[in-house]
Amino acid sequence: MRFINELHDGDMVTGTYLCKKKETLKTKAGKSYYSLILQDKTGILDAKVWELSNGIDHFESMDYIHIEGQITSFQNALQLNVKRIRKSQEGEYNESDFFPVSNKNVEEMYGELLKYINNIKEPHLRKLVSSFFVEDKDFIIRFKKHSAAKSVHHGFIGGLLEHTLGVVKFANYIADNYHIINRDLLISSALFHDIGKMDELSTFPENDYTDDGQLLGHIFIGAEQVGLRIREIPGFPVKLASEIRHCILAHHGELEYGSPKKPALVEAMALNIADNADAKLQSMIELFQSADDRTDWLGYNRLFESNIRRSSSYNS
Amino acid sequence: MRFINELHDGDMVTGTYLCKKKETLKTKAGKSYYSLILQDKTGILDAKVWELSNGIDHFESMDYIHIEGQITSFQNALQLNVKRIRKSQEGEYNESDFFPVSNKNVEEMYGELLKYINNIKEPHLRKLVSSFFVEDKDFIIRFKKHSAAKSVHHGFIGGLLEHTLGVVKFANYIADNYHIINRDLLISSALFHDIGKMDELSTFPENDYTDDGQLLGHIFIGAEQVGLRIREIPGFPVKLASEIRHCILAHHGELEYGSPKKPALVEAMALNIADNADAKLQSMIELFQSADDRTDWLGYNRLFESNIRRSSSYNS
Amino acid sequence: MRFINELHDGDMVTGTYLCKKKETLKTKAGKSYYSLILQDKTGILDAKVWELSNGIDHFESMDYIHIEGQITSFQNALQLNVKRIRKSQEGEYNESDFFPVSNKNVEEMYGELLKYINNIKEPHLRKLVSSFFVEDKDFIIRFKKHSAAKSVHHGFIGGLLEHTLGVVKFANYIADNYHIINRDLLISSALFHDIGKMDELSTFPENDYTDDGQLLGHIFIGAEQVGLRIREIPGFPVKLASEIRHCILAHHGELEYGSPKKPALVEAMALNIADNADAKLQSMIELFQSADDRTDWLGYNRLFESNIRRSSSYNS
Amino acid sequence: MRFINELHDGDMVTGTYLCKKKETLKTKAGKSYYSLILQDKTGILDAKVWELSNGIDHFESMDYIHIEGQITSFQNALQLNVKRIRKSQEGEYNESDFFPVSNKNVEEMYGELLKYINNIKEPHLRKLVSSFFVEDKDFIIRFKKHSAAKSVHHGFIGGLLEHTLGVVKFANYIADNYHIINRDLLISSALFHDIGKMDELSTFPENDYTDDGQLLGHIFIGAEQVGLRIREIPGFPVKLASEIRHCILAHHGELEYGSPKKPALVEAMALNIADNADAKLQSMIELFQSADDRTDWLGYNRLFESNIRRSSSYNS
Amino acid sequence: MRFINELHDGDMVTGTYLCKKKETLKTKAGKSYYSLILQDKTGILDAKVWELSNGIDHFESMDYIHIEGQITSFQNALQLNVKRIRKSQEGEYNESDFFPVSNKNVEEMYGELLKYINNIKEPHLRKLVSSFFVEDKDFIIRFKKHSAAKSVHHGFIGGLLEHTLGVVKFANYIADNYHIINRDLLISSALFHDIGKMDELSTFPENDYTDDGQLLGHIFIGAEQVGLRIREIPGFPVKLASEIRHCILAHHGELEYGSPKKPALVEAMALNIADNADAKLQSMIELFQSADDRTDWLGYNRLFESNIRRSSSYNS
Amino acid sequence: MRFINELHDGDMVTGTYLCKKKETLKTKAGKSYYSLILQDKTGILDAKVWELSNGIDHFESMDYIHIEGQITSFQNALQLNVKRIRKSQEGEYNESDFFPVSNKNVEEMYGELLKYINNIKEPHLRKLVSSFFVEDKDFIIRFKKHSAAKSVHHGFIGGLLEHTLGVVKFANYIADNYHIINRDLLISSALFHDIGKMDELSTFPENDYTDDGQLLGHIFIGAEQVGLRIREIPGFPVKLASEIRHCILAHHGELEYGSPKKPALVEAMALNIADNADAKLQSMIELFQSADDRTDWLGYNRLFESNIRRSSSYNS
Repeated sequence: MRFINELHDGDMVTGTYLCKKKETLKTKAGKSYYSLILQDKTGILDAKVWELSNGIDHFESMDYIHIEGQITSFQNALQLNVKRIRKSQEGEYNESDFFPVSNKNVEEMYGELLKYINNIKEPHLRKLVSSFFVEDKDFIIRFKKHSAAKSVHHGFIGGLLEHTLGVVKFANYIADNYHIINRDLLISSALFHDIGKMDELSTFPENDYTDDGQLLGHIFIGAEQVGLRIREIPGFPVKLASEIRHCILAHHGELEYGSPKKPALVEAMALNIADNADAKLQSMIELFQSADDRTDWLGYNRLFESNIRRSSSYNS
Repeated sequence: MRFINELHDGDMVTGTYLCKKKETLKTKAGKSYYSLILQDKTGILDAKVWELSNGIDHFESMDYIHIEGQITSFQNALQLNVKRIRKSQEGEYNESDFFPVSNKNVEEMYGELLKYINNIKEPHLRKLVSSFFVEDKDFIIRFKKHSAAKSVHHGFIGGLLEHTLGVVKFANYIADNYHIINRDLLISSALFHDIGKMDELSTFPENDYTDDGQLLGHIFIGAEQVGLRIREIPGFPVKLASEIRHCILAHHGELEYGSPKKPALVEAMALNIADNADAKLQSMIELFQSADDRTDWLGYNRLFESNIRRSSSYNS
Repeated sequence: MRFINELHDGDMVTGTYLCKKKETLKTKAGKSYYSLILQDKTGILDAKVWELSNGIDHFESMDYIHIEGQITSFQNALQLNVKRIRKSQEGEYNESDFFPVSNKNVEEMYGELLKYINNIKEPHLRKLVSSFFVEDKDFIIRFKKHSAAKSVHHGFIGGLLEHTLGVVKFANYIADNYHIINRDLLISSALFHDIGKMDELSTFPENDYTDDGQLLGHIFIGAEQVGLRIREIPGFPVKLASEIRHCILAHHGELEYGSPKKPALVEAMALNIADNADAKLQSMIELFQSADDRTDWLGYNRLFESNIRRSSSYNS
Repeated sequence: MRFINELHDGDMVTGTYLCKKKETLKTKAGKSYYSLILQDKTGILDAKVWELSNGIDHFESMDYIHIEGQITSFQNALQLNVKRIRKSQEGEYNESDFFPVSNKNVEEMYGELLKYINNIKEPHLRKLVSSFFVEDKDFIIRFKKHSAAKSVHHGFIGGLLEHTLGVVKFANYIADNYHIINRDLLISSALFHDIGKMDELSTFPENDYTDDGQLLGHIFIGAEQVGLRIREIPGFPVKLASEIRHCILAHHGELEYGSPKKPALVEAMALNIADNADAKLQSMIELFQSADDRTDWLGYNRLFESNIRRSSSYNS
Repeated sequence: MRFINELHDGDMVTGTYLCKKKETLKTKAGKSYYSLILQDKTGILDAKVWELSNGIDHFESMDYIHIEGQITSFQNALQLNVKRIRKSQEGEYNESDFFPVSNKNVEEMYGELLKYINNIKEPHLRKLVSSFFVEDKDFIIRFKKHSAAKSVHHGFIGGLLEHTLGVVKFANYIADNYHIINRDLLISSALFHDIGKMDELSTFPENDYTDDGQLLGHIFIGAEQVGLRIREIPGFPVKLASEIRHCILAHHGELEYGSPKKPALVEAMALNIADNADAKLQSMIELFQSADDRTDWLGYNRLFESNIRRSSSYNS
Repeated sequence: MRFINELHDGDMVTGTYLCKKKETLKTKAGKSYYSLILQDKTGILDAKVWELSNGIDHFESMDYIHIEGQITSFQNALQLNVKRIRKSQEGEYNESDFFPVSNKNVEEMYGELLKYINNIKEPHLRKLVSSFFVEDKDFIIRFKKHSAAKSVHHGFIGGLLEHTLGVVKFANYIADNYHIINRDLLISSALFHDIGKMDELSTFPENDYTDDGQLLGHIFIGAEQVGLRIREIPGFPVKLASEIRHCILAHHGELEYGSPKKPALVEAMALNIADNADAKLQSMIELFQSADDRTDWLGYNRLFESNIRRSSSYNS
């Protein structure tokens, strides 16, 4: 299989692609044909199946399909003229070829996260955190795979874990250096702050807002889930239960960013600082990666409301 | 008993007042005395107990106390020189003399509310609403007594009920006149929209923000409570569960007013309209009531960001 | 005649369309031809008249023209190749086929409006309102036909009437339920609040901002017109004259929405609430109507700054 | 007569003051007395009339009264103990001792204004402007005396004239230097831009917002008045009528500053620039005048949102 | 040479154009060709050089090149099919044909500027200003040629001089009419206020932001340069040095417009007024020039946030 | 000496205080006396010297003075009735008793700062930083003593050093964890980011804004000073010079917070994050220190726009 961004006019193509979209249309002459959008992690490709009879097995949109065909050029854009299609089988393809994936090793990151969890001393928080990150196998599997965003930063498989770890480490630095911080509360909040994203965003290949994501949002969802689990832990201190949910609710820092409460605890402030810092710096990393190497000026960036450039001494 | 706003210099006072605050201080000569703040629904009064021995029974702040003493004037302000104090007994006083109370009949209002509840046809919503407003005796007692605010509109006993009814009626008008509205969803949301205030604000005489009010806020609390109850209703439709919680979350209409989501459903918009309309109009009613009758101009109002006046033809 | 949205490549077309735009251009060979934009209420269509001699009568842009020709496809868009043109005669076509029109019956709506007018008791307001809505035949004809907007809500023939009625009814509900409201003042203001739009927007088919609309705006125009009429009513109370014009001036609620004064009277507030509520709910109705039935999510809406969806139980 | 800011404890006082406020109160012993606020242009003074019988003639608040009495000190503030009062007669006092007055000669300023009026060439504008500033004797008298503000800049007798002249001159400079400007339109608009203030603010000694000022505002009032006068001028061009009212409506430059339309004409922009410039610079002049001479830093100024200082080389 | 906006399909072209962009591409057949963007002051033109061998001399992007070729039409756009290219020689072309240039005479404008400089009396300011505008030959040459903007107002050769003169004259008017102004400080600040643009923007043909422009901005650059020169003038008063740099730093008037300080001196306010006025009025001049003469409405303008129109009597 | 906050009515006082303010006033009887404000780090005290002859040596405001006298109570406030005054001698008092001082050891903090300086590898940055922090003895002395603010966070002796160290450490953490950061540039910028405060604020006891602070601000001052020093370092890379000044200019992150440029480099963003984080967390530390220990709710905080509370488990 060749990646989509490597194909040229006239190339013969054989291999597996994700069928992002499938439409059945008619030619002027009234004959049915398929118009497809194929996708891999390098981009998307327009494809047409003009002859629906021969060698075109049944498949649906969002299936991985094995394709044979030839690239043509239509109005300055490449198009794939498909001859044969069948559904691909697991093993024939590698999911990581189709979606963006964290550059870092998921298991190593998770191992690092567990170290911070093992450092939590307050027993109820320890129990609460463990009930998700140590004992809930289904949660752990989903958490490791989820992205942290539809588009902006950490929008890839493993992104939620990578971002959570970045925030936890930042939070730990703050607890080390500013003595008024209750470390256990801050680290626990950092671990939970974005778990609502697992219900806000569907998994890849969709990675799009769910109904609950649109209607409730990850901030509410996360705080509600932590609240539900707390009810199952006997003797969980009432105040502490309010505090950890407050940190989750307030972690966006401002009402206009979707937090229904502004930070009232120093740990909520610290979580907001850590979340914001990791998000901004990771956004810059992704911006640098996606940019053309030959220029220092990376153009106007809407998130940062500034023209961005690499500093002259970057790389040394 | 005479109300605080009717007392004059020299008056002898005998009656029950709420002791809002009690401090034990020392005179320059080193003698202990009590400095009290007494309260009824007409205002507050500074009181001193210079002789702690005779006739001064034990009492605490927030007790209702029966007092004998005389009014004096100190630095242009009235002060009560207290001779005797004992705790008042239930029956000796009327709670409604001490706190602001709705002008309307609580039971009549509740009866009206039940009519709207009886009109709900969707069975799961009907069950959900009834589980609070019909079956939960403790909830009903608390709901009828609660205020809807610390200061602004509906900040009195019965205020939550009065405001909820006002919003439900407004919502019903909208459902009658705009056919795209799902009436059951809108009425149910209107009923629940401020129930989080029962945990956000403590009851009278305090009527102040609780810990949970400050840390979580009534929007989150209300949505969470409805979510918990939904889990107990078998077969409650998943989408409907998200929709009713969305309406509660979004009822402030804008992120900067504390809603973590803007209205995405027409019912959420309608609830926001109804809530906002009842709040504004009731604020005007309270403003008119508290103003001097002799002038049309009521001065600058911060909530409305405008100088407010009565219209010339307001007489009835 | 077939509606524009029903035409296909190859169709023969005979019928009347509105000629929205007419340009005389030249081919590379130097030969003159017409490039037209045709319109009906379902959309617009590009048309070319390559041969200007035969059967092409004189017509101007904004004429209704009777056309014969054939549909062709050019660069994926349909185009009408016109063979014959003549001006259509009144009676040959139905104006309501060419512009968006209220779904509701204009005369019924106007009758309902008159009932509210007949309820006004304050004699000067009654006289003022009647001088427009009962006695001024020209005003009544124009009022019934006007739209209430260029694009957003109620942007169709009869829209101004439909919106005014919606606001009057809302205002009446408020007067019924909040006793501090001066009903006559509020209903009168509601009737007048948007009459300035009759000069702000030209009539269909243009339905676009006029010079006065751009330079003065409907808020000023409406308040000025009411002021002029008041001068003709002997003994009109000075204060009441200021109050009704205030309600008109303040009905957008905020300076940044074009009101030169914020509401200072409870009736001005109520008018703002009613106007805003009807506008938002009607916008949602139009959004639902224009949306594809097969999906609940209607996409991001700039007016509401939110992704909008139908609630699950919206079926009727 | 001595000015209020020159009086000391123990001084005997004989002279005329404006009685800003008059209240009849009772002593604890039940005896009636007057509590007065006296005013001149240097400040206000608390006064008491303990004996109402002898030598205390009838007078009302807002009368000029001739007083005899002695200054005493009560709680660190001066108070006048009044022995005799009678109403002052015209001629006994000088109005300019009681209200702030323009430093400049009113007739000279008006003469200068007339020169600009005589330069207007467009006949309808000439007629319109003259109908106010040349022919309307009552208007001229009121215009010369009015202030341009309750508090901020030009809040003194003659202030409206002084500000209008400042804006007209600025406008004339702009017309001289930027050729796209229609001078007649700009000068006429500048003359009219604040005439609505004559109805927005009452005259001295009140100088406070009127009912119409609060409900309609000077922007609407001015545009409406110019519109009414235009109707009396036969053949006044329709477009020009819209343009001059637009300039008045838009002269605050931004919706949030109370203009219902943003400037759409270059003359409206120029008027906004000239108005804003004269207002800011005059505010600075008044700030410098009111400040202590011994310091360069004049403290934080809310209007300018900055700490203000005199530049080192300001000497004249 | 014919200007680009005068060329038609089929025209033979011989003359000099600026080569704004040069790319070497390959046809499908693998043959190299040049794709060029040519520019003159009337617009840009797409050009292709299909045969690279014959008569195509070496040249680079940003060279002035002499071209022979023919206009063809491709997909409704004109394209130049180039036959011969050589670099143009100085003298063969006129720079002012390629870039926008001030309509006014540069030397006359500079002469006028010098008159204001000769009027400065404070000796240190006189010395400071002269060290740039009289003695620094290199500065003078660059100052006369520079534009004042990339796109908005005064974005042409001589624009910086024209804008500076406009602001100086405005400042002079203010100093004439408002006596609290220190004229020397204001005129000097006006002269310097935008000199930082000479480093913020590169010269034509680029006229784009430089590295320093993006990273430091003209406000900082200008204030720093004036500060450096002040250090070379013995005895320059410390306060005056702060004041003139303050005027430069604060001349945008608001923090959100890039001034690190709001105006604290009346001269800084006056400079902000003058700068803003000249910028707005010149923007309108350029808008009028670029607009179609046949319409009064010039469409929505983002800078002014308004639909703009010519006043009816413009031109008389 | 006893601290001001420990004095009671009737106490005899002997000791040294800072004379913050000295006024010579007259009694009603015409006799001169001194009215003083005394200060130590615990507060201020009103003092009167009624007899100016005996034992009252010459002194000025801002002198340390040795005082004998007695505390009296006047209108509920303590006042010192002074009998004897003489200037205190160095050694008699400890400056740290009079101003707020960092809790941390200045030399230890400075030593830690030097370690980060010694880690800078880029030779020009190393030279630049050393020229201030290693070689400039006067700078080092002033830097160690300066506060970082008039009021908010780090407003004490040593505060600038403590804050700078906090930011440098934060910056170092970021450089350790986000590989795109140029550590040398970031650390150097962090060291310099607030050095402009040494000219923006005067030293204690004043600790108030200077003329340059008001007119130029610490952001401009710091960037200008670094620019001047760079000119003395041969071969300093031009780009690097712009970059480090950009980081200083942009460190407030937003134009409306006084940065004339938004961050365009990742190092500028990181500096803004680190500065903001240390400022917020230190503000919380100071808020906790100044608050009453008996309550968790610390009241509404304007900086954080939130009611602040200690988390329940904050004990250490």
